[in-house]
Amino acid sequence: MTYCVGMVLDKGLVLMSDTRTNSGVDNISVFRKMMHWEQPGERVIAVMTAGNLATTQAVISQLEERTKTPGERRNTVYDAPTMFQVATEIGRLLRDTIDERQAANGAQGQGRFTASMIVAGQIKGMEPRLFLIYPEGNFIEASWDTPFFQIGETKYGRPILIRAYDRGMSFEDAVKLLMVSFDSTLKANLSVGLPLDMMVIERDTFAAGHQRRITHEDTYFQAISAGWSDSLRNAFNELPDYSFYASADETA
Amino acid sequence: MTYCVGMVLDKGLVLMSDTRTNSGVDNISVFRKMMHWEQPGERVIAVMTAGNLATTQAVISQLEERTKTPGERRNTVYDAPTMFQVATEIGRLLRDTIDERQAANGAQGQGRFTASMIVAGQIKGMEPRLFLIYPEGNFIEASWDTPFFQIGETKYGRPILIRAYDRGMSFEDAVKLLMVSFDSTLKANLSVGLPLDMMVIERDTFAAGHQRRITHEDTYFQAISAGWSDSLRNAFNELPDYSFYASADETA
Repeated sequence: MTYCVGMVLDKGLVLMSDTRTNSGVDNISVFRKMMHWEQPGERVIAVMTAGNLATTQAVISQLEERTKTPGERRNTVYDAPTMFQVATEIGRLLRDTIDERQAANGAQGQGRFTASMIVAGQIKGMEPRLFLIYPEGNFIEASWDTPFFQIGETKYGRPILIRAYDRGMSFEDAVKLLMVSFDSTLKANLSVGLPLDMMVIERDTFAAGHQRRITHEDTYFQAISAGWSDSLRNAFNELPDYSFYASADETA
Repeated sequence: MTYCVGMVLDKGLVLMSDTRTNSGVDNISVFRKMMHWEQPGERVIAVMTAGNLATTQAVISQLEERTKTPGERRNTVYDAPTMFQVATEIGRLLRDTIDERQAANGAQGQGRFTASMIVAGQIKGMEPRLFLIYPEGNFIEASWDTPFFQIGETKYGRPILIRAYDRGMSFEDAVKLLMVSFDSTLKANLSVGLPLDMMVIERDTFAAGHQRRITHEDTYFQAISAGWSDSLRNAFNELPDYSFYASADETA
């Protein structure tokens, strides 16, 4: 599996992804699932991927190939005029890659080659935008009501995102929140693993901002992981105590 | 979906289940998913169910029927000599019910009629025991290493269970913990819904102890639900702050 989160803040975009890939439990590898392209001062576009690794790598490689064939640059992440068109083109590539693989493997391969992606970025003159791309190639965009997207193993880390996310939060707080969400997921599911990749895209800089790979040795992540266990237990202890005798609707 | 949790404590067993059943999102009902049988002073046995409602009701009805045919009482929850045999018999009933339904519906019905169950209880002269029964009819038992089982929509509520569960905790704290776990699940997934059913089986009482149905109007649950959001945010704020400049492995 995988766990990736992209969120929109007033200040810009924050992305985090894990790096574990597995085919069964005895074939585990580390692969980067976050890629980005930038033309400093003009645009920055980032992609995070979940699902069949051969599929997602094929899509990323095709995007890369196009950017490296000057003169034939069309429909690339560098020349699409809007983030909407970037998402449309990546969606098309994703669907085509999956369709081709499924067709080559007949009904037997049904569903085996699917993948989904988060696309984030900003192009000069426009707002930062965040998209979730489905295996079918269509996509949805983050909004005021739904300001973050998760792909992969999304459930363990969702409750804290729902409760602590705030559009006005600082990048530092957003990174802290993502680390807590990832730590909850790492602790519960073997298919999500360290190291993590993290990137901040500050609004109107049109460049990849703060980037970091968070490994087992990362002292801040260690502090969050240990501290969150203690904090949760303290928070739990501070809640009002249950009594077997206080309730009106008690039946036994 | 469904969410049910059974846990073993030093003091006994604690069970909680939701009551939402749905067939699509426009056909939602309330059904009790926790049943129990007791011979006061001799045994108490409880079952919680997740999965296809027709399947789980068929299993429960067959268990009920047997207890109501005196003279023919065999393999009932009342006369099985051990909890292991109770679990074996319920597993057999579950598998047979699923097999029958699948066979009647051909390959088309593959997987549609599955269900899983948690069986908990104590028989005089033996320890309290807790089992998780799979659709295949086999089962596993809770142990010192894995002292609680979840069925249904298990992921959202798992991180807090992992961190706050303690075998030596009081029944009151266990109920509080379950309410937090259920609240996290309710907030994230529409297929799990109030009211909740809760039951405590105190060790060596051989009787259903404290039981309660927790509705929207339950003031304690309301306090937990609201308080946990605040507590989580406070816990999050108390964690050390992230800095973009402090880390050795910073790359940008």
